[in-house]
Amino acid sequence: MSLSFCFIGAGNLATHLSKAFKNSGYKISQIYSRTEESAKELAEILSTNFITSINEIDNHADIYFVALKDSAVEEVLSKINFNNKLIIHCSGSLPLTVLENYSDNIGVFYPLQTFSKNRDVEFNEIPIFVESNSDKNEQILLQLARKISNSVTVMNSEKRKMLHISAVFACNFVNHFYTIAADILKSKDISFDYLKPLILETAKKIQELEPEKAQTGPAVRFDENTINAHYNELNNFCDYQQLYMSVSKSIFEHYKK
Amino acid sequence: MSLSFCFIGAGNLATHLSKAFKNSGYKISQIYSRTEESAKELAEILSTNFITSINEIDNHADIYFVALKDSAVEEVLSKINFNNKLIIHCSGSLPLTVLENYSDNIGVFYPLQTFSKNRDVEFNEIPIFVESNSDKNEQILLQLARKISNSVTVMNSEKRKMLHISAVFACNFVNHFYTIAADILKSKDISFDYLKPLILETAKKIQELEPEKAQTGPAVRFDENTINAHYNELNNFCDYQQLYMSVSKSIFEHYKK
Repeated sequence: MSLSFCFIGAGNLATHLSKAFKNSGYKISQIYSRTEESAKELAEILSTNFITSINEIDNHADIYFVALKDSAVEEVLSKINFNNKLIIHCSGSLPLTVLENYSDNIGVFYPLQTFSKNRDVEFNEIPIFVESNSDKNEQILLQLARKISNSVTVMNSEKRKMLHISAVFACNFVNHFYTIAADILKSKDISFDYLKPLILETAKKIQELEPEKAQTGPAVRFDENTINAHYNELNNFCDYQQLYMSVSKSIFEHYKK
Repeated sequence: MSLSFCFIGAGNLATHLSKAFKNSGYKISQIYSRTEESAKELAEILSTNFITSINEIDNHADIYFVALKDSAVEEVLSKINFNNKLIIHCSGSLPLTVLENYSDNIGVFYPLQTFSKNRDVEFNEIPIFVESNSDKNEQILLQLARKISNSVTVMNSEKRKMLHISAVFACNFVNHFYTIAADILKSKDISFDYLKPLILETAKKIQELEPEKAQTGPAVRFDENTINAHYNELNNFCDYQQLYMSVSKSIFEHYKK
């Protein structure tokens, strides 16, 4: 059975997910995005068609993948007649139930990874979390997920939301701290390259050690002199100065217990 | 010329650094630590002697490596007669000048990495930053550093302090966010293992992309609904709830520019 997919959205996630499905032999019949540039770019990669008008959505696709930012999902879906076909959203935070009004066949397909368009990822190592409204749909989702990944788990909406929050800390907030580090270094004309081995080792360390046991640095040593000296040194970076103290205090509280 | 080193301190950094020197053919003549367990453990690894009384420090070593927490450095040094031998501290934040009162030959040797005793690291990939009070001493420091690392740079105290602050963000604060993520997952009985590929990819990504361009997630998309939903979901983690909002706002401010 060769299923055909319509992708609603052409951002980072849609790009990587649709490519992974195409590489596993599925047919991507159509890409929709409001933004012509994104729609066209992805359609070219997949050798398929794109549309920018929601009225032209193909009613014959077997499965609709919704990979939009959370706030846009309901508005876009309300404009489409899905004829009870399977609709799948890819959001960590939205519950399955946001799809209830649009079809009797609904599911969630959440790949836990950070995707940037111009960087390839190995999809088979990415944990995928699925959820759906019936055993039949769950089997379809599991089958799809197992075609592209070796780590597939059924998880409900409530747990998935907490998983997403933890991922925001472990990825987005972490990356913001890399950005802050880069900003601080730039102010003294020091290359960010020097931090790269440290950043990599910090991430590798917790593949084996619990992060709680991997902690080092002035805050976990309760080294107030160093913390205060760092705080004063950051007086040209008011925003970062506040964050420096909040996170140091949080580390302090954690290890005081 | 076979130099002999005395290590003052037997913590994470002293352990890894003294092992790297021993593996490069240098002689570690003595380990001092107030804590007998640490001193003994490291001395056994290095097949050398340890002392826990500062009066027994060997006056015949060629070089003294001071690897103590910053707040302990001056107190310990004031009790030792170094006979003008070369004293080297390994701190990111302390200036070279803290050593001025204890010898005419002083230097700094700062390896930029996170060290845990029970985890091996490849020393030759670790950037080492050196500084000293004379060309002669600088040459000695450069020679020592190049024996164990392929990345050796002369850097003054002011720049080194900023480098250290950036490392606190990129490593210690990052690791604390891994710990927070683990705590959040634990509350819903979800395995931390699911986050490991995401954490590794986040660190690998910025080896090639600038961190500013690698950012993803709700805050950089200005997705207020998701941010507010996450905030409310964290109401059992008051401390993390505040951090969630502070960091989201900082991301928001950064990309608004």
